[in-house]
Amino acid sequence: MQFTAHQIGVLLNGTVEGNPDATVSKLAKIEEAEEGSLSFLANPKYEAFLYTTNASVVILNNEFQLDHPVKATLVRVKDAYSSFSVLLEKYNTIKLDKSGIEQPCFIHPSATVGKDVYIGAFAYIGPNAVIGDNCKIYPHTYISDNVKVGDNCTFFAGVKLYFDTVIGNRVIIHSNSVIGSDGFGFAPQADGSYNKISQIGNVLVEDDVEIGANTCIDRATIGSTIIRKGVKLDNLIQIAHNAEIGANTVIASQTGVSGSTKIGENVIVGGQVGIVGHISIAKGTQIQAKSGINRSIEEEGKKWAGAPATTYNNHMRAQVVLQRLPELERKIEELERKLKENNKSENS
Amino acid sequence: MQFTAHQIGVLLNGTVEGNPDATVSKLAKIEEAEEGSLSFLANPKYEAFLYTTNASVVILNNEFQLDHPVKATLVRVKDAYSSFSVLLEKYNTIKLDKSGIEQPCFIHPSATVGKDVYIGAFAYIGPNAVIGDNCKIYPHTYISDNVKVGDNCTFFAGVKLYFDTVIGNRVIIHSNSVIGSDGFGFAPQADGSYNKISQIGNVLVEDDVEIGANTCIDRATIGSTIIRKGVKLDNLIQIAHNAEIGANTVIASQTGVSGSTKIGENVIVGGQVGIVGHISIAKGTQIQAKSGINRSIEEEGKKWAGAPATTYNNHMRAQVVLQRLPELERKIEELERKLKENNKSENS
Amino acid sequence: MQFTAHQIGVLLNGTVEGNPDATVSKLAKIEEAEEGSLSFLANPKYEAFLYTTNASVVILNNEFQLDHPVKATLVRVKDAYSSFSVLLEKYNTIKLDKSGIEQPCFIHPSATVGKDVYIGAFAYIGPNAVIGDNCKIYPHTYISDNVKVGDNCTFFAGVKLYFDTVIGNRVIIHSNSVIGSDGFGFAPQADGSYNKISQIGNVLVEDDVEIGANTCIDRATIGSTIIRKGVKLDNLIQIAHNAEIGANTVIASQTGVSGSTKIGENVIVGGQVGIVGHISIAKGTQIQAKSGINRSIEEEGKKWAGAPATTYNNHMRAQVVLQRLPELERKIEELERKLKENNKSENS
Repeated sequence: MQFTAHQIGVLLNGTVEGNPDATVSKLAKIEEAEEGSLSFLANPKYEAFLYTTNASVVILNNEFQLDHPVKATLVRVKDAYSSFSVLLEKYNTIKLDKSGIEQPCFIHPSATVGKDVYIGAFAYIGPNAVIGDNCKIYPHTYISDNVKVGDNCTFFAGVKLYFDTVIGNRVIIHSNSVIGSDGFGFAPQADGSYNKISQIGNVLVEDDVEIGANTCIDRATIGSTIIRKGVKLDNLIQIAHNAEIGANTVIASQTGVSGSTKIGENVIVGGQVGIVGHISIAKGTQIQAKSGINRSIEEEGKKWAGAPATTYNNHMRAQVVLQRLPELERKIEELERKLKENNKSENS
Repeated sequence: MQFTAHQIGVLLNGTVEGNPDATVSKLAKIEEAEEGSLSFLANPKYEAFLYTTNASVVILNNEFQLDHPVKATLVRVKDAYSSFSVLLEKYNTIKLDKSGIEQPCFIHPSATVGKDVYIGAFAYIGPNAVIGDNCKIYPHTYISDNVKVGDNCTFFAGVKLYFDTVIGNRVIIHSNSVIGSDGFGFAPQADGSYNKISQIGNVLVEDDVEIGANTCIDRATIGSTIIRKGVKLDNLIQIAHNAEIGANTVIASQTGVSGSTKIGENVIVGGQVGIVGHISIAKGTQIQAKSGINRSIEEEGKKWAGAPATTYNNHMRAQVVLQRLPELERKIEELERKLKENNKSENS
Repeated sequence: MQFTAHQIGVLLNGTVEGNPDATVSKLAKIEEAEEGSLSFLANPKYEAFLYTTNASVVILNNEFQLDHPVKATLVRVKDAYSSFSVLLEKYNTIKLDKSGIEQPCFIHPSATVGKDVYIGAFAYIGPNAVIGDNCKIYPHTYISDNVKVGDNCTFFAGVKLYFDTVIGNRVIIHSNSVIGSDGFGFAPQADGSYNKISQIGNVLVEDDVEIGANTCIDRATIGSTIIRKGVKLDNLIQIAHNAEIGANTVIASQTGVSGSTKIGENVIVGGQVGIVGHISIAKGTQIQAKSGINRSIEEEGKKWAGAPATTYNNHMRAQVVLQRLPELERKIEELERKLKENNKSENS
């Protein structure tokens, strides 16, 4: 893909300053750009790079005033940052514009596949599965029996969807994530062994969800494990059986949510957090990375930290005192010494 | 699959009250059941739902006495909970009843495959591999050279077994788990780089083990990494080279066991626990979620918590004092003040 | 593979003592060896096993003096440990000596594949991908559009490389790891939902890197996420977008590195560590398992521990005081009591 400064100007409804035939074939940060790159300047912190950059074309705000001449061709726009975002998105759309059905792939005769889909080689679509329109099913994806997938979904290579999983529209799932594996449920027996409790529920993923790579969402024992509209899950996350993640909640990498726990809407959870089972987390809660949540959070919109977690303010206060611990110990010794001296002098 | 109340009554050796022709096609919790669902009431906590449920058929204990009339058809049995468990298992068995060999798959001419197996499309069975009877090998599973698998095993889509892995009978492995990847062993060199130490051992998984999704078990440097009979591992777990997990031990999600560590029988390990290498954990030990175990545990059957872990009781006591820290600090200041006053008054 | 003691002697330039026709077919530790095994004795701690081992052949240092007769045939060499390492490596090379192109696999007509490669069944090599010489691409590996791979790389079954990924020479990636998935970037909207920020950068992996199983490395938003020469990553690790891992740095299992963080050369990071985004970690830093790093580390070559982490020495001191907390509390109560008594006696 090659574009001229002129073409970019037209696309962004901007004004070209310099050579309108300057061509670019990639996007780069202004401080790292090589010749043939398109870049942008929005943050004044990076202003100095405008005069030294090797980018061939730079997108710049209309009102920005140059201190020196620049080598790059400029495309002046109203808002350089959002103009660049528009280009990022266009670039990405082109990059990911796969279509057609590659061979060999496996589509069961009883499966239904929508219009304008991409199905990669070695993808597997099982009995009675239904795939909507405009979906992209990359190679090595496994879609099991009775799975329902809405429109405009993208499943990257190696995604595995167990039977009966239901996926909404515009859902993106990254490579090697597993949706619908058995919940971890076993009944202890008298001889110390365990009997498996059959997990016959499913996983329900609503619209506009994005799920990272190598993440696991277990099916419910009965009923559904539910990922609500707009949830964003990072890589290597564990969501256990019968959990429910509220709309527009964001969870960072390597966090684990235990069984039957309900997380509210618009919650933000940091990385490597652990949340025990059978509790609920109020709407708008924010949880610091590495925290351990061992009981329900009922008040909305508060920050929590620590393991076990307390409110963020309590946690920070405790951290400060913790650092003063050796000093406190010295003070106690000093007090003991003084008291002994006092008593000695009194007795003398 | 559709069943009538009459058929369920016959299956469970129960008595039907109400319409014997009421049909059900799914299982649901009594509080969430829609028309066409089969449900059960065992826990008195849920008794109120019996009168409001939309379930078409409800399994109920013989001695349960109705306060009001109910809409659902009842199937009376001796023990509603275990009757329902029986149905769960039957349902699951039907769901997972795959058989036959789908094409294309790859079975090396030197491999041996038992009777009545399911081999999904795009499954790979390598040179000299041996697969027992009644195994289910889902799509995208990779079984490498010389792997031995017993009877009645299920490997869900995307499981990877490296060469020389040995698997017992009735072992279940969930999607995208990796068994037999190289142990993490490198010898530091004078120039700061590392030389790989070849990992030529294998992984041995005994009978009745279940392994979750995206879990990793590394092969031994020499000898075997061993997962004993009846072990249950959750998702996203790391078992390092030459570790050994004792019979009927249960480990929750995202826990890591480092190299050469031996965990005893009937141990219970919570989620996100870290266990260092080259130690041993006594039989019957229980380890709280998020703990860090940095030395051997020799006494059997104790509870541990914290990072680094202490006994559960010590940990809880320490947590209590920790919460009192700001108060302790105030007390010390108060003591200092009083002592100064005393000294002042004495000197005055 | 079967070898005689005579053949091993020739291979290692050693001297055979005992039956030169003794045959071995596997390598084992001296304390676990069965008949037909080859073992070695280097660590004097294991000397006693030399006289009881069932190994058929044992490699031994030239100067080692026997106290009793031994059953095994001995192969005397200058350095038993490194001779055995040589054998380990040879053994491993033979084990992993795959070649040829298995069918069915998918190689796009526009892809370029080097000489003497192994490409397993169901491997996928996409448009414009370039694979160097002597690479081993195991089954179910996905190599997307425009990926460049150097020479002598091994990707085990199920590895997924997203588009534009660049891999150096002699890189090993274990099963089901994902390289190049989207960075976790979303812009919050006024209504509480999130807009995806397109991730158009890539991942760059330099020479001699080894990456474990089920590990994730996200692509950069713009530019590259970079894994420098000689880095060793264990299983289940998360490397976020735009991070950079310095040469010869080693990271243990289940650790997470957040976005845009730069880790220096020769750093050692334990398991389950969390490192926040946008910081830098100095060369030669060592970080204890389970630590949480929440700010930049500027001084080189120090040890850190705890969450939030402090220097290792501070952390150990704090741990000691923490254990003394209940005792400190008792001391404070004692001080309060005494002071009260003093005051009472003074006032009396």
